[in-house]
Amino acid sequence: MRNEGPDTRTTGTVYLIGSGPGDPELMTVKATRLLEDCDVVLHDKLPGPKILESLPEDAEDVGKRAGGERTSQAETNDRLVTLAREGKDVARLKGGDPFVFGRGGEEAEHLADHGIPFEVVPAVTSAVAAPAVAGIPVTHRDHASSVSFVTGHEDPTKDESAVDWDALAATGGTIVVLMGVGRLPGYTQALLEAGMAPETPVALIERGTWPGQQVAAGTLETIVEARDEADISPPAVTVIGDVAASRAHVLEFLQNAYEGEGDIDMEG
Amino acid sequence: MRNEGPDTRTTGTVYLIGSGPGDPELMTVKATRLLEDCDVVLHDKLPGPKILESLPEDAEDVGKRAGGERTSQAETNDRLVTLAREGKDVARLKGGDPFVFGRGGEEAEHLADHGIPFEVVPAVTSAVAAPAVAGIPVTHRDHASSVSFVTGHEDPTKDESAVDWDALAATGGTIVVLMGVGRLPGYTQALLEAGMAPETPVALIERGTWPGQQVAAGTLETIVEARDEADISPPAVTVIGDVAASRAHVLEFLQNAYEGEGDIDMEG
Repeated sequence: MRNEGPDTRTTGTVYLIGSGPGDPELMTVKATRLLEDCDVVLHDKLPGPKILESLPEDAEDVGKRAGGERTSQAETNDRLVTLAREGKDVARLKGGDPFVFGRGGEEAEHLADHGIPFEVVPAVTSAVAAPAVAGIPVTHRDHASSVSFVTGHEDPTKDESAVDWDALAATGGTIVVLMGVGRLPGYTQALLEAGMAPETPVALIERGTWPGQQVAAGTLETIVEARDEADISPPAVTVIGDVAASRAHVLEFLQNAYEGEGDIDMEG
Repeated sequence: MRNEGPDTRTTGTVYLIGSGPGDPELMTVKATRLLEDCDVVLHDKLPGPKILESLPEDAEDVGKRAGGERTSQAETNDRLVTLAREGKDVARLKGGDPFVFGRGGEEAEHLADHGIPFEVVPAVTSAVAAPAVAGIPVTHRDHASSVSFVTGHEDPTKDESAVDWDALAATGGTIVVLMGVGRLPGYTQALLEAGMAPETPVALIERGTWPGQQVAAGTLETIVEARDEADISPPAVTVIGDVAASRAHVLEFLQNAYEGEGDIDMEG
């Protein structure tokens, strides 16, 4: 912390901190230090149960409010500015990495527009870590020379969808879809129509690195059925591409590696 | 660590650990714990000077050997197996994330093939963190609904190049090129030929989060000149896409944020 105390300043600093994929040990050293040092912690539910348990009691949950409704992004933005203007250093804790579909870019711009000093603290992204703990490297010298991250929140059947599934299919690299459980049928169909082979390996990793992690594996043609059989629910990460097949190869050893930790379920 | 001691086992465990982008505080809590707990540390030069300084004195550098030559991947693979068979827990420390162009997939497969228990410890990838500390979110609700990571090591003028620059250009999302200083003229040309606008913003971040960090900014048309003027050398990350323009907007505040840390140079 570069500020000496409330006497030497009028405005606090906002730290846009990524909490990583959910395992508290996969937080960065800097994130854990700032959570201790800052005056206030603002979070939503995305960091996952284990990290949320470890937060100070007076941490503010901006992911919900009294009526059960979610706090809007605009309200969160305003709250960050208000707290900083009260001279407080604010730890704004976000799930995953703040700049990988985390809307950290919007919060950063809002702070910049309002003259609030801020710093971004990058984190381990679930897009890489959830596949990794399931035995899947998102790139591989022999199988994937690129990897693309997209969000599954958009409706792939809409003409105005910002995601170009044809182009993603044409890259020949790994495709990782974040938040893509519900729309799985739509984008697997879009990728098949774009000419990807029906036997392209696909894996779905639910709650990667969280307690209750689950994996479903299949192909572009079979993964929707596999999802339903394994009852995969959000949050989950979808990996599409040859690398997803490496899971079978290394699974046995990963199971060994996680034995004894008790709360990681490598089924599926 | 799940093993109780040498008495209860014959084979050690290999931990394929990512060191993150280079700032020691951006290592995960788990990585720092394992570096302390393991019997041996194997590393190359990619974790960067600050992290290398902090390693135990008897850490093995597999990035070079006596004659100045690099240790081959095959030799590193064999060394991991030998040490584990001696009953040692091995921390194999790799720059960035082990599964994002880190050849962690190959090391994992080699260990699996030889019956060595292993675990992958994901890390903050430079592909996200280097742009982040330079003020660039790799995704943004308004500007980029996908982000693709590729390696710049391949020659884009070769017909057999595994990277499909046409397809990457067509995604409309952010493109992040790792290790792409030398071949910058080739792939910027390939992206222009693929129809990307000459005024597409581009930023080059050298040694992101390391001491001596430097940034050069420009467009697809001007970035080669900007690289030469700023004398950008490897290691560096290239960000291509509208998000690269957000740097100008937030730079002032990032400069404030890094003031007092002394060793981060936000020039460029």
